[in-house]
Amino acid sequence: MLSFECDYNCGAHPAILESLIKTNFVPQSGYGFDEYSDSAKEKIRAACNCPDAEIFFLVGGTQSNAVVIDSLLKSYEGVVCADTGHIGTHEAGAVEACGHKVLTLPNHQGKICANELSVLLKNFYADENYEHMVFPGMVYISHPTEYGTLYSKQELSNISSVCREYEIPLYIDGARLAYGLMSKQTNVSLADIAELCDVFYIGGTKCGTLCGEAVVFTKNNMPKHFLTIVKNHGALLAKGRLTGVQFDTLFTDNLYFKIGRYANNLAETLKNGLKDKGYKIFIDSPTNQQFVVLENKTMEELKNKVSFSYWEVFDENHTVVRFATSWATTRADVEKLLEIL
Amino acid sequence: MLSFECDYNCGAHPAILESLIKTNFVPQSGYGFDEYSDSAKEKIRAACNCPDAEIFFLVGGTQSNAVVIDSLLKSYEGVVCADTGHIGTHEAGAVEACGHKVLTLPNHQGKICANELSVLLKNFYADENYEHMVFPGMVYISHPTEYGTLYSKQELSNISSVCREYEIPLYIDGARLAYGLMSKQTNVSLADIAELCDVFYIGGTKCGTLCGEAVVFTKNNMPKHFLTIVKNHGALLAKGRLTGVQFDTLFTDNLYFKIGRYANNLAETLKNGLKDKGYKIFIDSPTNQQFVVLENKTMEELKNKVSFSYWEVFDENHTVVRFATSWATTRADVEKLLEIL
Amino acid sequence: MLSFECDYNCGAHPAILESLIKTNFVPQSGYGFDEYSDSAKEKIRAACNCPDAEIFFLVGGTQSNAVVIDSLLKSYEGVVCADTGHIGTHEAGAVEACGHKVLTLPNHQGKICANELSVLLKNFYADENYEHMVFPGMVYISHPTEYGTLYSKQELSNISSVCREYEIPLYIDGARLAYGLMSKQTNVSLADIAELCDVFYIGGTKCGTLCGEAVVFTKNNMPKHFLTIVKNHGALLAKGRLTGVQFDTLFTDNLYFKIGRYANNLAETLKNGLKDKGYKIFIDSPTNQQFVVLENKTMEELKNKVSFSYWEVFDENHTVVRFATSWATTRADVEKLLEIL
Amino acid sequence: MLSFECDYNCGAHPAILESLIKTNFVPQSGYGFDEYSDSAKEKIRAACNCPDAEIFFLVGGTQSNAVVIDSLLKSYEGVVCADTGHIGTHEAGAVEACGHKVLTLPNHQGKICANELSVLLKNFYADENYEHMVFPGMVYISHPTEYGTLYSKQELSNISSVCREYEIPLYIDGARLAYGLMSKQTNVSLADIAELCDVFYIGGTKCGTLCGEAVVFTKNNMPKHFLTIVKNHGALLAKGRLTGVQFDTLFTDNLYFKIGRYANNLAETLKNGLKDKGYKIFIDSPTNQQFVVLENKTMEELKNKVSFSYWEVFDENHTVVRFATSWATTRADVEKLLEIL
Repeated sequence: MLSFECDYNCGAHPAILESLIKTNFVPQSGYGFDEYSDSAKEKIRAACNCPDAEIFFLVGGTQSNAVVIDSLLKSYEGVVCADTGHIGTHEAGAVEACGHKVLTLPNHQGKICANELSVLLKNFYADENYEHMVFPGMVYISHPTEYGTLYSKQELSNISSVCREYEIPLYIDGARLAYGLMSKQTNVSLADIAELCDVFYIGGTKCGTLCGEAVVFTKNNMPKHFLTIVKNHGALLAKGRLTGVQFDTLFTDNLYFKIGRYANNLAETLKNGLKDKGYKIFIDSPTNQQFVVLENKTMEELKNKVSFSYWEVFDENHTVVRFATSWATTRADVEKLLEIL
Repeated sequence: MLSFECDYNCGAHPAILESLIKTNFVPQSGYGFDEYSDSAKEKIRAACNCPDAEIFFLVGGTQSNAVVIDSLLKSYEGVVCADTGHIGTHEAGAVEACGHKVLTLPNHQGKICANELSVLLKNFYADENYEHMVFPGMVYISHPTEYGTLYSKQELSNISSVCREYEIPLYIDGARLAYGLMSKQTNVSLADIAELCDVFYIGGTKCGTLCGEAVVFTKNNMPKHFLTIVKNHGALLAKGRLTGVQFDTLFTDNLYFKIGRYANNLAETLKNGLKDKGYKIFIDSPTNQQFVVLENKTMEELKNKVSFSYWEVFDENHTVVRFATSWATTRADVEKLLEIL
Repeated sequence: MLSFECDYNCGAHPAILESLIKTNFVPQSGYGFDEYSDSAKEKIRAACNCPDAEIFFLVGGTQSNAVVIDSLLKSYEGVVCADTGHIGTHEAGAVEACGHKVLTLPNHQGKICANELSVLLKNFYADENYEHMVFPGMVYISHPTEYGTLYSKQELSNISSVCREYEIPLYIDGARLAYGLMSKQTNVSLADIAELCDVFYIGGTKCGTLCGEAVVFTKNNMPKHFLTIVKNHGALLAKGRLTGVQFDTLFTDNLYFKIGRYANNLAETLKNGLKDKGYKIFIDSPTNQQFVVLENKTMEELKNKVSFSYWEVFDENHTVVRFATSWATTRADVEKLLEIL
Repeated sequence: MLSFECDYNCGAHPAILESLIKTNFVPQSGYGFDEYSDSAKEKIRAACNCPDAEIFFLVGGTQSNAVVIDSLLKSYEGVVCADTGHIGTHEAGAVEACGHKVLTLPNHQGKICANELSVLLKNFYADENYEHMVFPGMVYISHPTEYGTLYSKQELSNISSVCREYEIPLYIDGARLAYGLMSKQTNVSLADIAELCDVFYIGGTKCGTLCGEAVVFTKNNMPKHFLTIVKNHGALLAKGRLTGVQFDTLFTDNLYFKIGRYANNLAETLKNGLKDKGYKIFIDSPTNQQFVVLENKTMEELKNKVSFSYWEVFDENHTVVRFATSWATTRADVEKLLEIL
């Protein structure tokens, strides 16, 4: 059975497992006070070109989003995001569980538009009743988006400017950041990300680790006693070395970027192959997720040979499905998939 | 530098790392729907002699406590525990963050007493103002306790009876359950635990895994849509295989029990050695944590050669410290420690 | 200065003040255990033709919505409402503060449509990822809506049927219920409301009291220990007699209905007068709130002589404003307003 | 039937009802933007000798406590109070419902001791594990306490100093402040209260109003957008005039103080009478609540003629009960009660 279901269905990149083995018997303090975490943070700071960045390793994406958003918002504030944003759709209300509303803007292939954001903020403060409403207290975007699309540097910069005008933080969900940074169609670097936003996370789980996301506060703005805040959310890992070792490895010899480039290349091969065969591409994604429109009959037959993800209904007879590549996908897998299709 | 600081300062038991390597390239669905999780659950059910047990793997202890307690309590209920209970002291208010009060009973070497629990419950309902108070909605105990002590089967049974009389669940925090079950001084088996309580967790992090705790609902009482509840708490692991593989290995060839027995034996050697040398044992712990009273001067000197945990002030000139053993401790480590002391 | 700003800008209907005076020195138990509350409940049960109704008096509308919704939803569930629904727009995130998402449907002049609700629910359970999403756990509608419009009995009945099919409660916010029940254009009675929904509240604050809303559970479905739940939300009134006396008066000699009819009549006179004068009516409201499109210049001039509410921008040169009538509005006020306009 | 059950079992002081009648038809804006609220605030500022005080009227005591505490604490902080403190015992977990732990100190006749507070704070920061614990983020005391006792000016000053040393706010629950300020045995004035604490509330409900408490921030420290915070808690009163008119009346012609003195005098008469008759006084309260030890048989007989409050078990054959006086108690009532006893 071929597996294109998602980018987190195998274990970890072999280099990461090796590092876990190599460090296994070296005793370290818990809760992130281990030397691997320290080393990983140094390497991430360098990769971000942000020497003052404050970094905290968390276990998963929904957890990172909930903890970061809750730690930055005041009780009466909400977070603005695209109506397709992960926090508003597929995180089971984890942001609301912390007491905050998710305020939505229309998405444009998964992205929000700086102008529309500006209008939302302007209208809010122009409304005579705004004190009875949820304040827009921060902005959340994902890069790549839930549809695999990417913001251009100009788009990010525009959104960032609006946030600064209204003095609210910009937060970037980088669950699949490796694929975004290594896309052939991007002009956005990790340093750009660090400069333009106030906090973001470098996704591990979907980019080669067993688990773990690196939350990066870029403007000396990590909330005071963040460790306690994290523990208060039940999110503090006892063996912080587990995330430390993994991110230390990811940011050694550019492994994080290599993983991104490798999976993107396979995804591009897949996309081109699908186009050649006449399949309708739902969204032209420049990253590792490819969204294709399949006839329902084709889709059903395919299920016996390939695992993939249902995305959404296209029309009565067609469905949008997703194929994802990762460090664990082989070129042979892609060729076999194209053959089957 | 010798390390006796805690039982979670090395990586994972080598057998677990081996399993991670062996399974690394086998694609699996996420969120716990992998074959390793299924297999681990089967083995745990067998070990508990509880064929209907419903099991969910979470990442850490504080997280498990917060999610389980919040999922079982009604909004106006609190959880009863010893005043030394981990949830009330060292979890940064994670239970309160979910909206629930921690109601305390006096501890007796870390344990609560069934009679005192019974009185608390009786008095609550006898109080004419009870509708204005937090209802005692469940009972939390840890086994071993935070002081390494153990409940006898009779004590557990008595507490369990009180809970059943008042129809509130009994929850056992088994962060260090391996050491409790394998103590030479216990008559409590895993099957007894499963029978006497309504939900408990089998600790992984402190008993040999990289991370992970197995929450076991023993009475067909796992809350409906528990996966969504877990995700709502930001606690759902994408690569559920990570905990699945680890627990599958722990419950193969009795590894979990072997780890417990091994560390207990070293702890016993340490305790006897300390007694022989005339050190004052603070609490006579039958498990892997040993609490010793040191002169402050001795303690300061020791810090240069051995890592251990500060526990509490004993008197002006003495401090209680903790030495913990684990699967990663060697007999040579213990001997060297005794030599130094 | 004429006052049409809202229906809660004067004190209380004189009959209510009289009752407060008459009962002032009769000692009563607190927290709703007073004879006036008992009497009011009896009268409300009779008026609803719902002998088993369980009734609880709360102080305000946002409070009632937050307490009722939080008490009926499970932690992972959200509440479905129109995108113009009060809970999602003008309650400062009080529902989210309790941990629940507000899920929206498009509004049709403030109303939701049973078919669209049915599709939302069907699609939710058809989505393969629904376990990662917020469950639609109840439905909220307001009657009259935020735009003064009304559901027909058929519309309510259809919504009710969908809710019953999916076994989720239907909750009606009756902040202005008096005006809805007494509209000339309604076929919905208080008994219909009680029959078709699972819980609703009879608004006092906007219909003649100093404060107070009567929450009515119609299906033996008041959550257990609701008093404690209310107190846990900081919403329990010590002098429950205050709401008891007021609702006892409102439901004596049909005062509640008289207040509704009186204000509706004045609103109709106003609407007809405005139409006669060629003003554009924004929404044809059959209740006590009238929404009119004014030229911005006219609006600014009017501000010096009349208080009214800004509603929303109509176009560059026009604004929608609201005029509201109440028990305290006089026919002379309406005539003077029409004269000024 | 004589009524000594509590100080909130009648309506409102007649002067308050008169004011409600007098102002009834004057239209005012909602949500506290009415002229009566403005006037009341001015008078309270003057009475507190605190010209910059920021004042917000809320409806009830539990609500005030929950909103104030939640608005001042960071997510990972808890509130320190006596183990008999109202927020920790009889408010149904409303503080925890907002996510915060109540940290307790032993009470001394209902009061906390500055030294013990200082030790708690010092020990907290001395504990190597404090980052894993709930931070003590503010201090709550009630004056009078739940046992009717009073802090001396020196005691308050000492507690205040400790709070300032640790830079955490001191909050005083003044549910019965009138009785505290007018006690013959106090040297604490309203201005002292305002100076020594950071926020307090002037209780209305238990001192003569139908409802309402005046929260006073004394150090330019009212949280930004407090109105929205209040609404977010479901605690914003639409007809803010209701609390405005009442407090405006309470602080006209010293009514608040007269009510306090009047009830205290009757309570003193009662206490002296009880002592003369040989009854055991449980706590020597200098305010309007009197706690007496009754034989259980006497208590049962008394129930037929007098309403009073059960307080706690004294011993097998005796119970502590409470008699409370208020503006509505008459001298004849007290004499009759003494006669019966």
